[in-house]
Amino acid sequence: MDIFQRSIKLHEELRGKITVENKLDIRTKEDLSLAYSPGVAAPCEEIHAEPTKVYDYTIKGNTVAIISDGSAVLGLGNIGAHAAIPVMEGKAMLFKRFAGINGFPICLLTQDTEEIISIVKNIAPVFGGINLEDISSPRCFEIEERLQNIGIPVFHDDQHGTAIVVLAALMNYCRLTGRKLEDLKIVINGAGAAGIAISRYLGKKDHEAVNQRIAKEIIMCDTHGIIHAKRDDLTDIKLELLNYTNPRNITGTVSDALPGADVFIGVSKANLLNRNHIQSMAKDPLILALANPIPEILPEEAMAGGAFIVCTGRSDFPNQVNNVLAFPGIFLGALHARAPRITLTMKFAAAEAIANAVTEPRRDLIIPPTLDESIAHRVAKAVVDSCH
Amino acid sequence: MDIFQRSIKLHEELRGKITVENKLDIRTKEDLSLAYSPGVAAPCEEIHAEPTKVYDYTIKGNTVAIISDGSAVLGLGNIGAHAAIPVMEGKAMLFKRFAGINGFPICLLTQDTEEIISIVKNIAPVFGGINLEDISSPRCFEIEERLQNIGIPVFHDDQHGTAIVVLAALMNYCRLTGRKLEDLKIVINGAGAAGIAISRYLGKKDHEAVNQRIAKEIIMCDTHGIIHAKRDDLTDIKLELLNYTNPRNITGTVSDALPGADVFIGVSKANLLNRNHIQSMAKDPLILALANPIPEILPEEAMAGGAFIVCTGRSDFPNQVNNVLAFPGIFLGALHARAPRITLTMKFAAAEAIANAVTEPRRDLIIPPTLDESIAHRVAKAVVDSCH
Repeated sequence: MDIFQRSIKLHEELRGKITVENKLDIRTKEDLSLAYSPGVAAPCEEIHAEPTKVYDYTIKGNTVAIISDGSAVLGLGNIGAHAAIPVMEGKAMLFKRFAGINGFPICLLTQDTEEIISIVKNIAPVFGGINLEDISSPRCFEIEERLQNIGIPVFHDDQHGTAIVVLAALMNYCRLTGRKLEDLKIVINGAGAAGIAISRYLGKKDHEAVNQRIAKEIIMCDTHGIIHAKRDDLTDIKLELLNYTNPRNITGTVSDALPGADVFIGVSKANLLNRNHIQSMAKDPLILALANPIPEILPEEAMAGGAFIVCTGRSDFPNQVNNVLAFPGIFLGALHARAPRITLTMKFAAAEAIANAVTEPRRDLIIPPTLDESIAHRVAKAVVDSCH
Repeated sequence: MDIFQRSIKLHEELRGKITVENKLDIRTKEDLSLAYSPGVAAPCEEIHAEPTKVYDYTIKGNTVAIISDGSAVLGLGNIGAHAAIPVMEGKAMLFKRFAGINGFPICLLTQDTEEIISIVKNIAPVFGGINLEDISSPRCFEIEERLQNIGIPVFHDDQHGTAIVVLAALMNYCRLTGRKLEDLKIVINGAGAAGIAISRYLGKKDHEAVNQRIAKEIIMCDTHGIIHAKRDDLTDIKLELLNYTNPRNITGTVSDALPGADVFIGVSKANLLNRNHIQSMAKDPLILALANPIPEILPEEAMAGGAFIVCTGRSDFPNQVNNVLAFPGIFLGALHARAPRITLTMKFAAAEAIANAVTEPRRDLIIPPTLDESIAHRVAKAVVDSCH
């Protein structure tokens, strides 16, 4: 059986990969009276009088909703709410496994931006944080942005999870090669959730986290090639990118963007590049070929073109960029600090913690292993510290 | 420490009475690949192609949302979404404890009927059933009614949970005294969720479950006394009651309703009655004094007035009417049968199963003990059988 058949078998056996369990076994009338009626009236009344006590008496402080409308699930696209459930359950498992957080999947029938915003606001009370997942671009940006003031962190993992781990990889690429972030020329292919977030992190000048532009030059490509000022097909989000990408306003395809670049970040298309593309880049480039399951270029081919380091999204190659390195620790830290939102400062602190978790970066180890249990706790600590 | 202080202490120690746990321990890359990316794509695609497979591959088939807007919590009233969480967590514990069902609390910031209906519809995909809880009357009736066609059972427990157990008590009162349901004269005090549901069960003529009116006469009282045709303050719901209650159209207070009645059902007001009220009733009456925590009349006082059987909502007296006898088994059966809604036939089957669980009814045992683990499974079986 291949991996997909084995996965079907597993899902069929489990019929749900998570379970809601009681922390107290109800055996006696006394148990029932304390956990439920009439005793439960006491914590209810205390929370009613002093709302912050909800964190002392309920699951809120350690529970995150994993919310999707099923519009952009894995590489599968708009498969809808029901078909998205297995992914959201899997995500819940990762929250528990790496951060001890209760994750609970909420899959929405509606794909209307206003309705989603309203629902998330209204179901927030029982949750300490909201992880938005697999919501298609550009709706994901507006939904996340407009939910930043609901009092608990709202974090769209497809944007930030990936961007944070990419940033960690850039940091260790610099450590290993003696380069500086601010000298890097970067080409990003893919202007979806992850691509936009990465370019915002690296390119924006009014940068809350570091107060300066991170990279020297960013060229952003989408399915129509390089994003430049003369294109008449740009959405608002892509127009925003023109403020901090493509300063020379070059045109053409990704092939025209790559010559001289230090870093390629692919978050979109399988088999996009070959060794010749890599050869056109600066010496010893970093290649992040993150398209899944088939990367933009296979590590062997990239190496043959002179790549110094190759990262992919896959677990069967070195340097797996997997957002499980970021989101469990980010939420653990944010919940611990009771942060009302997850700021760019917190995200940069997380990236630094992930990078620093690799004591001695090597070409085949610039990102910590995905299953390293210490990462979430390092990230959480850095996130908490960054809140002070 | 009294029960309330002990409950506070318990809630503070647990910080959440339920926990979301993984059914598979993720240790290896293989585990991750099967439960999450890339293997998880396979069940997603199968559900996308054949939506009913969501029951084979996800938690849906064994998971119930416990949804409240915090508008009518226990005896505490409109304490809001956050303060309601401890109750909903407690309810989730009962689902797991008695039926093995994953219950998950969803507390809503909004108390707008239309918004609640829309939210419940939209968050339904991950749930196999919806337990509405502690939503104030009369909104609870419309909300429940308008959600009957969303494809999964939607059940307002404050109405039906109580009504089903009351019905079971009536059945065993008849077994014990040789009376017949259709000969009973019944007075109900309290026209909220439970009172209305009970009178609908017992009074409606076009009765799907038994195709006839159950009781001989029902007199319904609210805070302004007996509900009769000349009152000009009746809401739509109470106007509906006139179709099958108070056939003699008597007026006055509960004291005017009681003479000659076989059964008193109180679901509203502490210390409403004394022994003289009971003496005015028919011989050997059944007294269901369900106001919590202080009943309409204490068992001792009712017995002194000639009550044959007294039931309360309290665990420290015999014959506790607790809806935990009903809802776990109702949902277990409905989920098992994949019933799209919980019909009156299913509710009557549940009541009968609860009544029949008491092999030999006695005056101090006409309802099974609240913590009897066999009840939910008996109820579930009866519910499943009633679906065929």
